[in-house]
Amino acid sequence: MTVAYDGSGFRGFAPNPGVPTVAGALGDAIATVVRRPVELTGAGRTDAGVHAWGQVVSADLPAEIDLEDLVRRLNKLLAPSVAVRNACWAGPDFNARFSANWRHYRYEVWNAPTPNPLIAGRAWFVAQPLAVWAMQAACDPLIGEHDFTSFCRRPKVDDGDPERSLVRRITSARWSTLDDDEHHLRFEIRANAFCHQMVRSIVGTLVDVGLGKASPGDVRGILVARDREAAGQVAPPYGLTLWEVGYPFCP
Amino acid sequence: MTVAYDGSGFRGFAPNPGVPTVAGALGDAIATVVRRPVELTGAGRTDAGVHAWGQVVSADLPAEIDLEDLVRRLNKLLAPSVAVRNACWAGPDFNARFSANWRHYRYEVWNAPTPNPLIAGRAWFVAQPLAVWAMQAACDPLIGEHDFTSFCRRPKVDDGDPERSLVRRITSARWSTLDDDEHHLRFEIRANAFCHQMVRSIVGTLVDVGLGKASPGDVRGILVARDREAAGQVAPPYGLTLWEVGYPFCP
Repeated sequence: MTVAYDGSGFRGFAPNPGVPTVAGALGDAIATVVRRPVELTGAGRTDAGVHAWGQVVSADLPAEIDLEDLVRRLNKLLAPSVAVRNACWAGPDFNARFSANWRHYRYEVWNAPTPNPLIAGRAWFVAQPLAVWAMQAACDPLIGEHDFTSFCRRPKVDDGDPERSLVRRITSARWSTLDDDEHHLRFEIRANAFCHQMVRSIVGTLVDVGLGKASPGDVRGILVARDREAAGQVAPPYGLTLWEVGYPFCP
Repeated sequence: MTVAYDGSGFRGFAPNPGVPTVAGALGDAIATVVRRPVELTGAGRTDAGVHAWGQVVSADLPAEIDLEDLVRRLNKLLAPSVAVRNACWAGPDFNARFSANWRHYRYEVWNAPTPNPLIAGRAWFVAQPLAVWAMQAACDPLIGEHDFTSFCRRPKVDDGDPERSLVRRITSARWSTLDDDEHHLRFEIRANAFCHQMVRSIVGTLVDVGLGKASPGDVRGILVARDREAAGQVAPPYGLTLWEVGYPFCP
């Protein structure tokens, strides 16, 4: 399933009994329709407050289910904060998380002297003017395969992640302005995978560069330090959206 | 003052004791700062659920007030759903409503088989495919000065409007798609003034045309009928945003 959600009302994607999560809401809705509990796997375990347009979720469902009917019923149960954009059958080895070969995130910033209530829950409000050219220049050292320890929050407990290293491969990272409005900034980043808080930590550091607290040339030093303390602030979750996930085949 | 707001939590702009309104919240905040009650006039009396980016509000304030400081303090009190974008002094005859010579509204539609949670509170979800070319063609007869009785909700009580007629002059009306996404439609309309529910009534009728329930050629007949019953459905308020208001001078 491709799933979109407004993360504002959820404590993240991953199921957590007694706490409102996207996987919890989606799992409950699917269980209501198929009349049995289901286990869900998401391509990205988005944090509390993070949104998604193209989260991909896999589940093991009875083959007799009519997927078009399932999507229609789920959307009735889940509106308005969660929507299933489509659903299709995958092979028995498909796993939304481990089969993915890239993730694309968007981060939005509202950079103007006064806030913008129309995107308050979707963009980080930064009142001081940002030097976008410097933020773009600061992306260069991040492109490619690197150990992103400086930009990753270490998991407190071993969560069974088979890939213990924090080496990731970023293929693109780009700032742009939206909708002919120089105040509305968008950051787009694509990588094979991201570690915990990696996009928000990169955005926070790039915004520090845009504010003149660091220079574009400092980013390489932060990266090679492999030290969480070397990086700048962590950008707030509500500006972040899991935009698209890529697989080595068309579904 | 130029004021932006997310109308979701408000019962419209106009003050209404005991009910959350934008003018109520803004007036309370101004009264807190200037330590006396103030009366506010808005350029457009937006309905419950309607948003604004460029609402203009006038008030009579003591000349010793520092406007930059006022804006900063108001934004602290009003965040995140209301923001004062700027404030400036106007002449004694200025009135945000009666001095305005045009209003520009935006209406957004999400036209896809499944809903979009990321813009659920900002766009009307229409699942059936819309023929946008027909909706654009249907705008033609609306351009110019006409009696818009068919598209206006008659006020229940005389509200002191000096202009009792429902003649208005529309200068432009245009559909476009947003952000390289054919599913996200935006309607922009500009007129000297709008009567009550006029934009939503026009959008509802144009969407009926887009659905094939009416043809572009029917719109002229609806207009000349001067009959509220002749028009189609009224589009929901949450898709509408008062975008900009024009004055015969730069403030």
